Amino acid sequence: MKIKEIKAIQDMDRVKRLNLINSITGISPANLVGTISNDLTENLSIFSSVIHIGSNPPLIGFILRPTEDNRGDTYENIIETNKFTINHIHSDMIERSHYTSAKFKKNESEFQKCQLTPEYLNSFQAPYVKESYVKIGLNLEDIHLIKSNGCRLIVGCIEHIYVPDNAIHKNGNIQLELLNSVGVSGLNTYYSLNKIAEYPYARVNDPFLKEA
Amino acid sequence: MKIKEIKAIQDMDRVKRLNLINSITGISPANLVGTISNDLTENLSIFSSVIHIGSNPPLIGFILRPTEDNRGDTYENIIETNKFTINHIHSDMIERSHYTSAKFKKNESEFQKCQLTPEYLNSFQAPYVKESYVKIGLNLEDIHLIKSNGCRLIVGCIEHIYVPDNAIHKNGNIQLELLNSVGVSGLNTYYSLNKIAEYPYARVNDPFLKEA
Repeated sequence: MKIKEIKAIQDMDRVKRLNLINSITGISPANLVGTISNDLTENLSIFSSVIHIGSNPPLIGFILRPTEDNRGDTYENIIETNKFTINHIHSDMIERSHYTSAKFKKNESEFQKCQLTPEYLNSFQAPYVKESYVKIGLNLEDIHLIKSNGCRLIVGCIEHIYVPDNAIHKNGNIQLELLNSVGVSGLNTYYSLNKIAEYPYARVNDPFLKEA
Repeated sequence: MKIKEIKAIQDMDRVKRLNLINSITGISPANLVGTISNDLTENLSIFSSVIHIGSNPPLIGFILRPTEDNRGDTYENIIETNKFTINHIHSDMIERSHYTSAKFKKNESEFQKCQLTPEYLNSFQAPYVKESYVKIGLNLEDIHLIKSNGCRLIVGCIEHIYVPDNAIHKNGNIQLELLNSVGVSGLNTYYSLNKIAEYPYARVNDPFLKEA
């Protein structure tokens, strides 16, 4: 493949540039973040920025944009209640999940508008997504303001995990292919996943490196 | 699928728990981060934590763990030079990329040990990966210490992008499937990507929501 530098990124057409920069990092996980306000208004938003931060304590983060309305609700609800859920999107719920990003009114629930079902489990305050196969309940741990653009890294500590029993490999790995979990590229393109390789924990005396 | 709560996460076998928590977020992008020290020792490490942070300015972040040796080199090199590269991993370079996570000595180059080729473009100080189809050159913008576990969110501003011309859709989106870019789940499982859906920017007056 002939690889070329993309010149003058700043001067590109605004939408083309937005799509390029949003998709340049590669595939991202497609997740729904569920929250509720103290006056019981539910909110649900799709996020592609969920990342593993640590295993002990079990920490997960995601990036909240500064201005968009529904993301504003997610932020306010997390501040109010300290609780949020992360729910995997699978291949039968992509369209409904995608449209949670529309700018609904503050008193409208994305669950209802997008035909997804709030689910409350074990008295956890924030709603899970009933349709999701992997659901995580988190307690707010920390918020980091990214000064360069006003985004925030929200860090939560895992309190609950719900997952189909048969989707966990005996080594602990979640088997994404069995769950039809999907990935997202940029703002609007969704991908299914096919497992193609698995390697052991990399050690310097591994045969692969010895033979190199 | 019968979904069950995973009880007593803290009490699980250490390796099983590590794999579960590392894979619970869903698919992640598989990227190589290239750096060089002021005394010209190159370093290359695989990271699954690369995230889009903003488009204007174009910001990308990734999470650096606090203790592992080769990640320490990545951190020190970025502090020294302010420059790093992010390079997509495609399906023909997964094994070589995976083994960059072995704990080589400080004076050993993962490029040489793992049969990957450093490439210097347009006088940019940090090495790109010649074998990658998507290469990004970044300037260090900011570092956020995550107090809960000592990890750092490294934020870089994009200075250069190299990508095959025909892999950019006319709307600006990178076409991951054409590039054979892969995703990673947890610490050691790799997935290929198949595009299955694409939706327009979500507006509240979209027919999908009207009909709901």
